[in-house]
Amino acid sequence: MKPDDTDLAEMQQPDAAAIPGMDGDGSHEEPRMSEAEEARAERLDEDDRLKPEFVEAVREALVDEHGDVRDLVEPLHPADIADLFEILPREDRPALARGISDLMSGEVISELNDYVRDDLLESLPPDAIAEIAEQLETDDAVALIEDMGAREQAAVLAEMELEDRAAIESALSFPEESAGRLMQRDLVAVPEHITVGDLIDYMRDNGDLTTEFWEVFVVDPAHRPVGTCQLSWILRCPRAIPISDIMKREQTLLPADMDQEEVALRFQKYALISAAVVDKAGRLIGQVTADDIVHIIQEEANEDTLLLSGAGEGDINEPIRTSYSQRVRWLVANLGTALVASLIIAAFGAAIEKLVALAVLMPVVASIGGNAGTQTMAVSVRALAMNQLTRSNTRRVIWREMRVALLNGVTVAALIGGATAMIFTPMLGVVIASAVVINIITAGMAGVLVPVIFDRLDQDPAVASSVFVTMITDSMGFFAFLGLAVASGLVG
Amino acid sequence: MKPDDTDLAEMQQPDAAAIPGMDGDGSHEEPRMSEAEEARAERLDEDDRLKPEFVEAVREALVDEHGDVRDLVEPLHPADIADLFEILPREDRPALARGISDLMSGEVISELNDYVRDDLLESLPPDAIAEIAEQLETDDAVALIEDMGAREQAAVLAEMELEDRAAIESALSFPEESAGRLMQRDLVAVPEHITVGDLIDYMRDNGDLTTEFWEVFVVDPAHRPVGTCQLSWILRCPRAIPISDIMKREQTLLPADMDQEEVALRFQKYALISAAVVDKAGRLIGQVTADDIVHIIQEEANEDTLLLSGAGEGDINEPIRTSYSQRVRWLVANLGTALVASLIIAAFGAAIEKLVALAVLMPVVASIGGNAGTQTMAVSVRALAMNQLTRSNTRRVIWREMRVALLNGVTVAALIGGATAMIFTPMLGVVIASAVVINIITAGMAGVLVPVIFDRLDQDPAVASSVFVTMITDSMGFFAFLGLAVASGLVG
Repeated sequence: MKPDDTDLAEMQQPDAAAIPGMDGDGSHEEPRMSEAEEARAERLDEDDRLKPEFVEAVREALVDEHGDVRDLVEPLHPADIADLFEILPREDRPALARGISDLMSGEVISELNDYVRDDLLESLPPDAIAEIAEQLETDDAVALIEDMGAREQAAVLAEMELEDRAAIESALSFPEESAGRLMQRDLVAVPEHITVGDLIDYMRDNGDLTTEFWEVFVVDPAHRPVGTCQLSWILRCPRAIPISDIMKREQTLLPADMDQEEVALRFQKYALISAAVVDKAGRLIGQVTADDIVHIIQEEANEDTLLLSGAGEGDINEPIRTSYSQRVRWLVANLGTALVASLIIAAFGAAIEKLVALAVLMPVVASIGGNAGTQTMAVSVRALAMNQLTRSNTRRVIWREMRVALLNGVTVAALIGGATAMIFTPMLGVVIASAVVINIITAGMAGVLVPVIFDRLDQDPAVASSVFVTMITDSMGFFAFLGLAVASGLVG
Repeated sequence: MKPDDTDLAEMQQPDAAAIPGMDGDGSHEEPRMSEAEEARAERLDEDDRLKPEFVEAVREALVDEHGDVRDLVEPLHPADIADLFEILPREDRPALARGISDLMSGEVISELNDYVRDDLLESLPPDAIAEIAEQLETDDAVALIEDMGAREQAAVLAEMELEDRAAIESALSFPEESAGRLMQRDLVAVPEHITVGDLIDYMRDNGDLTTEFWEVFVVDPAHRPVGTCQLSWILRCPRAIPISDIMKREQTLLPADMDQEEVALRFQKYALISAAVVDKAGRLIGQVTADDIVHIIQEEANEDTLLLSGAGEGDINEPIRTSYSQRVRWLVANLGTALVASLIIAAFGAAIEKLVALAVLMPVVASIGGNAGTQTMAVSVRALAMNQLTRSNTRRVIWREMRVALLNGVTVAALIGGATAMIFTPMLGVVIASAVVINIITAGMAGVLVPVIFDRLDQDPAVASSVFVTMITDSMGFFAFLGLAVASGLVG
C-alpha cells in the first residue's frame, strides 16, 4: 500500500504546518497537555528546574511514615530524579533511594553527579552495584566503577556476567578520559558488498541488536572502517542498492587513546553525530555518539573556567576536604606571588613614608593591570583550547593584543591621571598615568605569552597561567608606579 | 535474499572484531592510508591543526603568480579550509577566496568565524551572498545574514528564491539566540496511523526529502507532536507495524522562543539527538539537532569564562575596536572599585605614615581575598548555569562555602601571620592573620551571594559578578587589616 501523499507531511516550506489533509478530520482542538506534561509542570519551573515546593514536599514525605514519596517522584524523567538527589541534603539521599528503589534505573544512576553517586554507591553491596552496571551501556558502566578502589572494583566485576565484565575490563584498559573509555561497543558494522535490502532484513531478524545507533559503519574484511552510512540514506534507497553506493567514504576516525577533549573538538569541527573508534591496527572497536559528547564539551569548557580561577573541579557536591585541598594550594601560591609584590613595596618604604599618597594609589595600578591581564589570558586560553591560536599566528595575536592594550591603557591612564592631577599634584598624575600604561601593556604581553608558553611545554594553560600573570602585573604595577615616583623626583 | 549472518557483524562482544567470516577472504593486510588520508596527514598535525609549514606554503602560493593554491587546499575538509582562512592574516584572505572560488562551499562559509566571515562577505555583492545562502540549511543561512545591516539584508533576501527567502524571514522573526533561529525547518513529520512500510515507501518515493534527520516526528491532525521515532527503531520493525506502536510518546518539546542556552541544557540533560521545535499553538515548526548544539554549548560555556574575566566575546578575530570597547568598560568599572579601596586606605593615611609595614603588607590581604572570591564565584556561576544551584539548596551551598573558606582562611592566615610575626612584630602577625581570615570568609560569602542575587534579578551572573566581588574583597581586605592595626594600638 502506498500512502496518500497528503497523509505524510514533510516540512520544507515555512507554511507546511498548514498542509491540506493534515487537518483532515476537522478537529481544531485547543492546545492541551497530556497527564504526564501536567505532572511535570507541577514539579518543574519554566527553566526546567525542580520547584522548591516540590523538593520540600519530597522531604516531608521522607520523614512522614505515611508519605508516599514514590507517587511524588514517579512522573519525573530519570534526569530529573538525578537532579532531585543532588538538590536534597546528603543525609536525605539514602532514604530517597530506598523509597523509590524500583525507579532507580541505570539512567538515573548515570545522570547523577559523580560525588553524589559515589556517596550513594558506598552504601550498596557489590552485587547491587553489579546489577546496576549491567543495565548500563558500557561507557556509563565504566563511569560508574572507574573511580572505585581496586578492591571494590574487583568485587563488583566479580559479580557481573562474563560478557559485560569483559567489555568493562577492556574499556578500563584505555587511558582515563580517552575515546576508548567514552565509546560504546554496541554498534552495527556491515561489509561493503551487501545491499540496502540485506541490511534491513538483517536488522529485522536480529532482535538483540542495539538501538542506539545513528549511522551504520561499513568495514573491510579486516574489520577496518571504509565508510559510514546515515540511517536516513538507507531508509530512502530501494532495496537493491548496494551499501557501498550510498556510504560516505570520508569519515573521522577516533583512535582509542585520543583524549576526550580532542574527541569533542572533532565532533564540533566536523559536525558529527557519531564516529568510529579504532584500535592501533585500525580496526573498528566502538562508536562515540554526539549525546555523550555534549556532556564532555560542557565539562571541558567549565573545567577551563574553574581552573583559571584556581577552583579545581569546582563541583558544589564534592566533599569539603577536596574543595579545601584544591583551592588552598592556589591561595598559598598566591601568597607567594603577593609577597614578591610586598618586597617591591618594601624597597620603596622610604618614599611611602614621605608621600603617603603613594600607598593610597599604588593598589589602583596593580588592580587595573591584574584585570587587563585576566582579560587577555581568558581570550588566549580559549583560543588555544579551540585550536585558533597556533604557531602560525602567535605573533599576529600578540601584536593584536598589544594594540588593544595600548588603547585600553591610554583611556584608563587619562582618567586616573586626570583625577590624580586634580586631587594631588599634576606630577603625581603623570606618574600614575605612565605606570598604568606600562602595566596594561605588560599585562597584554603576559596574558598571551604565559598561556602560550605553557601550551608549548605541553602543560594545560588554564591551570597555572593565572598565578604567573597576576604576579607579573602586581609586581610591575608597584614597581612602575613607585619607581617612576622616585625617578621623577616627586619624593626627592 | 536473506544475508548470511556471518556477513554482518554486530559488535556486542569485546572480541567481535574477530568474528568468523569477516576475515573470510584471508587478506590480512597491514593498516594502510588512503590517498586522502595521506594528503591530510601532510597538512594537519596530530592535534588536527594546520601545520605552520602548510600555512606558509599557501601564503607563498598566493604571492607567486604560478603557484597553484587550489591544488594545495583541495584535499582539506571544509572545516579545515575555514580554519585556514582564520589563521591567515586578514589581508591574504580575499586572495585565497579568489584562488579557491570553486571550493568555497556553503559548508566552508558556515564554519567560518563570525568576524572573518562578515569581513569576507563585505567584499561580495548581494547576489553572490544570496547564492551562498541558498546552498545552506536554514539555520546556517540565518547565521550568515542575521548580523548584516537592515539594508544589506534586504538586498540579499531580494536576490533569493521565494521559498528560501520566506524560510529565512520567518526564522528572523524569532528572538536572537532562540530555538526558532537555531532550528532547521526541513524534517520528516508523519501522522500516527501509518505503518513502518508506508513510511519507508513514502521516503523512497520522495527524492527531495531532507537527509538531515535522525528521528521522525509523529504529529496529530493539528500538526502537534505526539511522539518521536528513532530511525533505528523503524529499520528494525516489520513493515506492518503501525508507527504509533514503536514511537516514544515522552519527548522534549522546545518552544520557538526558548533561549539557546536553555535548549543546550535540555539536550545535555535528556541526552537528545534531535528535538521538535513548536510554535505558541504547540504546532511542530522545525527541529534542532545535536550537531548544532555542540557549537552552542561550547559557545555558552566559553562565554561564561570570558564574561567572568571581563573580556566580552573574547574572539581573537574580532576587530580591535570591538575588543577595546568591550574590555575598556570593565577596566573603567575596575578603576571605580579600586578607588573605593583607595578611599579606605586614605582614611588610614596617618597610620601608614607611622608604620610603613602596613603599606607593604596590605596588598597581600586584598590579593588573597580577591583570589578566594574568584574561586567561589567561578564555582557558583557554573552551578547556576548548570541548574545545580537553585532556591532549594542556596542556603546549604552558602554554608558549604563558609566551611571551605574557614579552612582556607585558617591555613593561609597561619602562614602569613607566622612569617609576619617573625619579620615584623608578633602583634602585626596577629593583625594580618585575623584580617586574612575575615577577608577569605567575606570572599566566600560574596562569591556565592553576588552571582545568586544577579540570577534572582534575572541578570546573567557571569557578566558583572567579578567587579562586585573584587570591590568587596579589596575594600574588606584594606579595611580589616588597617582597621585592626589601629584598633590593636599598633600605631599608637
